[in-house]
Amino acid sequence: MPYVNIKITKEGATAEQKKQLIEGVTQLLVTVLDKNPATTLVVIDEVDMDNWGIGGFPVTELRKKK
Amino acid sequence: MPYVNIKITKEGATAEQKKQLIEGVTQLLVTVLDKNPATTLVVIDEVDMDNWGIGGFPVTELRKKK
Amino acid sequence: MPYVNIKITKEGATAEQKKQLIEGVTQLLVTVLDKNPATTLVVIDEVDMDNWGIGGFPVTELRKKK
Amino acid sequence: MPYVNIKITKEGATAEQKKQLIEGVTQLLVTVLDKNPATTLVVIDEVDMDNWGIGGFPVTELRKKK
Amino acid sequence: MPYVNIKITKEGATAEQKKQLIEGVTQLLVTVLDKNPATTLVVIDEVDMDNWGIGGFPVTELRKKK
Amino acid sequence: MPYVNIKITKEGATAEQKKQLIEGVTQLLVTVLDKNPATTLVVIDEVDMDNWGIGGFPVTELRKKK
Repeated sequence: MPYVNIKITKEGATAEQKKQLIEGVTQLLVTVLDKNPATTLVVIDEVDMDNWGIGGFPVTELRKKK
Repeated sequence: MPYVNIKITKEGATAEQKKQLIEGVTQLLVTVLDKNPATTLVVIDEVDMDNWGIGGFPVTELRKKK
Repeated sequence: MPYVNIKITKEGATAEQKKQLIEGVTQLLVTVLDKNPATTLVVIDEVDMDNWGIGGFPVTELRKKK
Repeated sequence: MPYVNIKITKEGATAEQKKQLIEGVTQLLVTVLDKNPATTLVVIDEVDMDNWGIGGFPVTELRKKK
Repeated sequence: MPYVNIKITKEGATAEQKKQLIEGVTQLLVTVLDKNPATTLVVIDEVDMDNWGIGGFPVTELRKKK
Repeated sequence: MPYVNIKITKEGATAEQKKQLIEGVTQLLVTVLDKNPATTLVVIDEVDMDNWGIGGFPVTELRKKK
C-alpha cells in the first residue's frame, strides 16, 4: 500500500530507466518492510530544468556553468 | 482552506470530467467537514503511463498485457 | 490506481469524518472516471495550525482574530 | 536540506520569474532558519488551468467570467 | 538532486528499516540514473492508519477485518 | 491561488519562525508573480530526523557525526 513519488530533472530518462526505478523501489519496500507490491504505487515526476532549483539557482543555469 | 491533490494516469480525462472531480471533492469537504469552498484548492496531476508504476511495473506495460 | 492527498488543518476531524472523506473521494473517482477502487489510495494529512498559512498568516493567528 | 514545492497555474511565468522564486525562497530559508542553501531544493509545478480548482470551479472557467 | 517521498502506514517501522529505505532508494538513483547521492533527498512520511484509505476504507478498518 | 509546501527537519523551528516563512513566501509570490495573497496557501511539514535522508543517510546519523 505504500506510495512513492520520485522527482528528477527532465533530462532524457528512458522508459527502460523509469521501469527500473519503479521495479527497484517496489522491491525495496517488499524487502525492507514486507509491503504488498500489488498495491504499491510509484509516480515519477520529470521536472523542467527551469523549474528546479538547488543552491538558489535554476538547474538550467548550473548546467551552463559546468 | 483544504488542499487536495488528485493524481491519475494521463489517459484522456476531459475538461468536463476534471471539472466534476473539482466540484465533487470540494463539495465533499463542505459536507463532511464544513470547510469553506472559496479557499479550497484542488490540483489534478495527469501522469504519463511510463511514469506511473503499480505492482512493480509501469502502467504502459500493464495496459499492453490486458 | 489514482492517488489522492487531502490536506486539512488539525482541528479535531473524527475517524468517522475521515472515513467519509476516504469513501467519498474514492466513489467520486469511480463515478467520474471509472477508476478501480481496489487500488485507489487516499492519504489525509492533518496539519498543525501553526504550520498552515493563508493570506500570509498562520491559521493560529487568523482563528484568534475571529 | 529543505525541500520546497511551489505550485502555480500555467499562465506564462518566465524563466526569469521562476529564477526569482527559487532565489527568494532559498534566501528566506537561510535568513529565517539558517538553512544551508547548497542542499536546498525548490521545485516549481506549473499546473494547467483545467486541472486547478478553487471554490469548486476550474480556473479556466473562473478566468472566463472575469 | 532527486527528491523522493515515501509514504507508508505508521505501523512501527524501525529507525534501522527507515535507514535501509533511505540507503536503498538513494543507491537506486545512483545506479539507474547516475544521480549525485550528496544532493539526493529522501523524506519518509508515516501516516496514521485512520488517515490512509484503500479500496474506499480506512486501513484501520481493513486491519480489523483480517 | 498558489500552493507552497515547505519541508524542513523537525529541529525546533518556533511559531514565530514559521510565521516568517509563511509571510515571506506569500510576499514573494505577490512580488514576483502578482499572485493574490488571500488565496495563497502555505503548508510547512516538519519531518523527524529519522525520516529524512540526504547522501544516503538519515539526518539523525549525520548530526551525530558532526
